[in-house]
Amino acid sequence: MKRIAFLLLAVASLAVAAYIAYASGQSDGDAAPIYGIKIPAGYRNWQLIAVNQILLAGKGDQLRAQLGNDLAIKAFQEGALPFPDGAIIAAIHWTRVPSEANNKVLDGPFPGTQSFVVGSRVNVQFMVKDSKKYATSGGWGFADFTGEKPGDKALHETCFPCHIPAKDHDYVFAHYAP
Amino acid sequence: MKRIAFLLLAVASLAVAAYIAYASGQSDGDAAPIYGIKIPAGYRNWQLIAVNQILLAGKGDQLRAQLGNDLAIKAFQEGALPFPDGAIIAAIHWTRVPSEANNKVLDGPFPGTQSFVVGSRVNVQFMVKDSKKYATSGGWGFADFTGEKPGDKALHETCFPCHIPAKDHDYVFAHYAP
Repeated sequence: MKRIAFLLLAVASLAVAAYIAYASGQSDGDAAPIYGIKIPAGYRNWQLIAVNQILLAGKGDQLRAQLGNDLAIKAFQEGALPFPDGAIIAAIHWTRVPSEANNKVLDGPFPGTQSFVVGSRVNVQFMVKDSKKYATSGGWGFADFTGEKPGDKALHETCFPCHIPAKDHDYVFAHYAP
Repeated sequence: MKRIAFLLLAVASLAVAAYIAYASGQSDGDAAPIYGIKIPAGYRNWQLIAVNQILLAGKGDQLRAQLGNDLAIKAFQEGALPFPDGAIIAAIHWTRVPSEANNKVLDGPFPGTQSFVVGSRVNVQFMVKDSKKYATSGGWGFADFTGEKPGDKALHETCFPCHIPAKDHDYVFAHYAP
């Protein structure tokens, strides 16, 4: 009887924890250091801000996409700066790999075409706007995850300084793709 | 009095036309030849399938993103083939331009980095699944628009033959990015 009661309590606790995670819009994984940000639930289904490509000299090529939650997308579409509290931007980084299949198809109409598609996930980064909580870093909290694992403190100390050159765009590098 | 009645009639007609366009999920622009597809309303807000890059030999470099309506995204996420009737995939193609601003920032931590972002819109293409209406082209209708203007008949005749090599993936080249 005691064992059953304990099991019920454990299940109830898990349900409550899951609900809290759901209600807070965060997953139940580890939080990134300094800013205490967890992976936002459902971010992969957010709308597209823009895409870009980066050749990290000697460190591989990447294709990247930035997604935004509803508040972020609305601000981008309206060109409203600064971004409102609650806006979140996700930047997904993938390896860039050649697509032999695409090249074969495209070589007909466009001889010599080179097509590259996304390979595996490298990491995902988040910017969370909270002008009070993150007042000392331009109103933004930053987080970097490889898989479910957040980067370390030293990595996260580099986020805000790196974003300072984009101060005129509320510290956001991405611009909304037409 | 007659003039007012005429004006009211005109306004009512416009409202009905706008409602029909809204209800059909299509914009009120021109339809692409052969398949009769108009630009789907609100497609820029659809969820992200994947991104890719293409170097069209001598014809410029592009960054591309594929977006899907709810039916298409659900099918991609569940790996369900063939795609259900009503699924629509949008492929947005942009010019790829170097970002000097990004390069300056990234050159610190990653010397020699080359960053490329989207420039202007080149075109947008749609695949619309309707297994009965488009039975002779794998169940898909195809459309290509530059701005609001659909490409010509000759262009649209090339769509389905080009997609045949992707028959094993229901004629869709894009795969869902992780």
